[in-house]
Amino acid sequence: MNAEKVEFSRTAGKPIRCRAAVAREAGEPLVIEEVIVAPPKSREVRIKIICTSLCFSDITFWRLKVPPACFPRILGHEAVGVVESVAEDVHELAPGDTVLPIFLPDCAECTDCQSNKSNLCSKFPFHVASMMPRDGTSRFTDLKGETLFHFIYTSSFSEYTVVDVASVTKIDPAIPPNRACLLSCGVSTGVGAALRTANVESGSTVAIFGLGAIGLAVAEGARIAGAKRIIGVDINPDKHEIGKKFGLTDFVDSRSCGNKSISQVITDMTDGGADYCFECVGLASLVHEAYACCRKGWGKTVVVGVDSPGSQLTFSSFEVLHMGKTLVGSLYGGLKPKTDVPMLIKKYLDKELELDKFVTHEVNFEEINRAFELLLQGKSLRCVIWMDK
Amino acid sequence: MNAEKVEFSRTAGKPIRCRAAVAREAGEPLVIEEVIVAPPKSREVRIKIICTSLCFSDITFWRLKVPPACFPRILGHEAVGVVESVAEDVHELAPGDTVLPIFLPDCAECTDCQSNKSNLCSKFPFHVASMMPRDGTSRFTDLKGETLFHFIYTSSFSEYTVVDVASVTKIDPAIPPNRACLLSCGVSTGVGAALRTANVESGSTVAIFGLGAIGLAVAEGARIAGAKRIIGVDINPDKHEIGKKFGLTDFVDSRSCGNKSISQVITDMTDGGADYCFECVGLASLVHEAYACCRKGWGKTVVVGVDSPGSQLTFSSFEVLHMGKTLVGSLYGGLKPKTDVPMLIKKYLDKELELDKFVTHEVNFEEINRAFELLLQGKSLRCVIWMDK
Repeated sequence: MNAEKVEFSRTAGKPIRCRAAVAREAGEPLVIEEVIVAPPKSREVRIKIICTSLCFSDITFWRLKVPPACFPRILGHEAVGVVESVAEDVHELAPGDTVLPIFLPDCAECTDCQSNKSNLCSKFPFHVASMMPRDGTSRFTDLKGETLFHFIYTSSFSEYTVVDVASVTKIDPAIPPNRACLLSCGVSTGVGAALRTANVESGSTVAIFGLGAIGLAVAEGARIAGAKRIIGVDINPDKHEIGKKFGLTDFVDSRSCGNKSISQVITDMTDGGADYCFECVGLASLVHEAYACCRKGWGKTVVVGVDSPGSQLTFSSFEVLHMGKTLVGSLYGGLKPKTDVPMLIKKYLDKELELDKFVTHEVNFEEINRAFELLLQGKSLRCVIWMDK
Repeated sequence: MNAEKVEFSRTAGKPIRCRAAVAREAGEPLVIEEVIVAPPKSREVRIKIICTSLCFSDITFWRLKVPPACFPRILGHEAVGVVESVAEDVHELAPGDTVLPIFLPDCAECTDCQSNKSNLCSKFPFHVASMMPRDGTSRFTDLKGETLFHFIYTSSFSEYTVVDVASVTKIDPAIPPNRACLLSCGVSTGVGAALRTANVESGSTVAIFGLGAIGLAVAEGARIAGAKRIIGVDINPDKHEIGKKFGLTDFVDSRSCGNKSISQVITDMTDGGADYCFECVGLASLVHEAYACCRKGWGKTVVVGVDSPGSQLTFSSFEVLHMGKTLVGSLYGGLKPKTDVPMLIKKYLDKELELDKFVTHEVNFEEINRAFELLLQGKSLRCVIWMDK
């Protein structure tokens, strides 16, 4: 038994007292404090987090003042860790396994998880969960005994977290932690949207609306698929240079389209429209623009961005019928966590998928609020937060 | 040279005086009168019509009082005929060829027509055309010298018509004319929507909204594809029995859903939704219902029905993103006239595609208004109008 396993065998079955970054109030800096992490219950595992990269969804639910936001909560979901202990009825994972907690459950039992056509688990349908999926309770308490809420079955801003087996993917430990964590959410979402949901063809033309980490990951996926032309659209002209590293061949500054709409500019550039359009911002108006400039006859518009609740997408019946275009949504890039993430890791290890360029910053756990500032200021794509470095 | 070719050689190059059923005023009975059909101009052929089946689009543009309706006009577009003469620069067709005039052009030159992914010709984009596509003039005049308008490049309610080569598909004359004509529009649209646009998988579940000829043709396509369950939805309970001949396994009377929506009824019947939903009426509200009850994760909603101009389809951003459903439009079933219609004819000759059951009535040309009445009264699926029988 190695040192880590010895350490784990000492804590298994007992509550662990450790540090976590707690979101106590909407928009207020996270507070690093000691918390109690209960042992895993049925079908759960406790994970020692190695590092987390900050995703914009963490910010969304940190600053949101209304439900599904709730406080005090332990956010964080793009993470990698090592299994510390497992419940008695968990046989597929063991202490010492390197794992990703992934927000989208993959229960391996329901029709969807057993099908190769769907990544939308029916047993644990995705929602902005604040408790454990099976018994609806929390494994976190603060030192005053107050319950702390979970976040989308992951809650990785804690040295230890408890995750259901449906939300854990075992990975090859050969991938460095500060690359592995990226695949828990954003990068997989973008790369999957291109490779899986859209199934981008070699030689095709792709337009990407929004060049945050997800949009750039779509570019990375399109590059891997052999797209001939990758057009990025953003309000920030700095994204032109940044995008080039991700395979961008063209850039449209959406604030400099003159008297043309973005869709007209792209239709003109592509002699009739892009083969694939990806909306990665989460604005209905941009989905409409994307749909308008995807190629008649075969164009596919993939909705990746998360819009505000209640927003609606409206299309002309005539255009839908007469243009032969496809509209499809893509959650987590259409990827099935337990089978597709290992495939992406293999692509990284084979030097096909480039992950290094997504990591622009790295900080210690104590500096976690700095990671929030960097992303809010648009200065970072991904900032890795190390728990113990 | 056979008798027909001798006859054709006498008329080639000259105007032909023949009978046509002219729509002189919106909603008024067609008038059978003598008209002059000019010889074909560059890239055109003149066709002797054998028979036409009446499609609801003929009725739509017969009773419509505003543009794109126009009068006097020769309607008719689901037809079969024999080439009488061709312009000098037409080499792909010759007098005596059995052909279908098809409303959707297939020019063989543009990017779309050369691609196997699109059936939406860019050289002659589909619209409710009233003139010939290349020079924008008419080949029809009445005996007073007044110009008669064409209809979607076909105008088959005339003993002779002139059609552009882009709108003519040569077919195997082994198929009887009163079966061949069905493939010019409605039946191909429905069968193609199932086999081509949706690519229905064997063993899957299909829901069809609207059981007119197109909806029943979707059922026929789904049956051929091996769908396990084919659910039809209609306001007319008689369609239940009729639908069984087309492979319907279940029927939902949309007026008897109690306090449930149609989509709830279908979701319950299918334990989560149909794999494929087809809207064949042309009502935005039904597209919304279809989308609501197609299976999360992989469900596909195909828009086949033609809604009124200006109508809009509205979806929740959340549902589009989180449900992984696909929305796609299907014009002429996604079929490419020149390559896919011969494929359907082969399926008919091989007894795979059943066409006989679509023909409920047959009338002589003089009784053409009777065909309109039968379809308007919901008594016919397809009524074949013979020019000379």
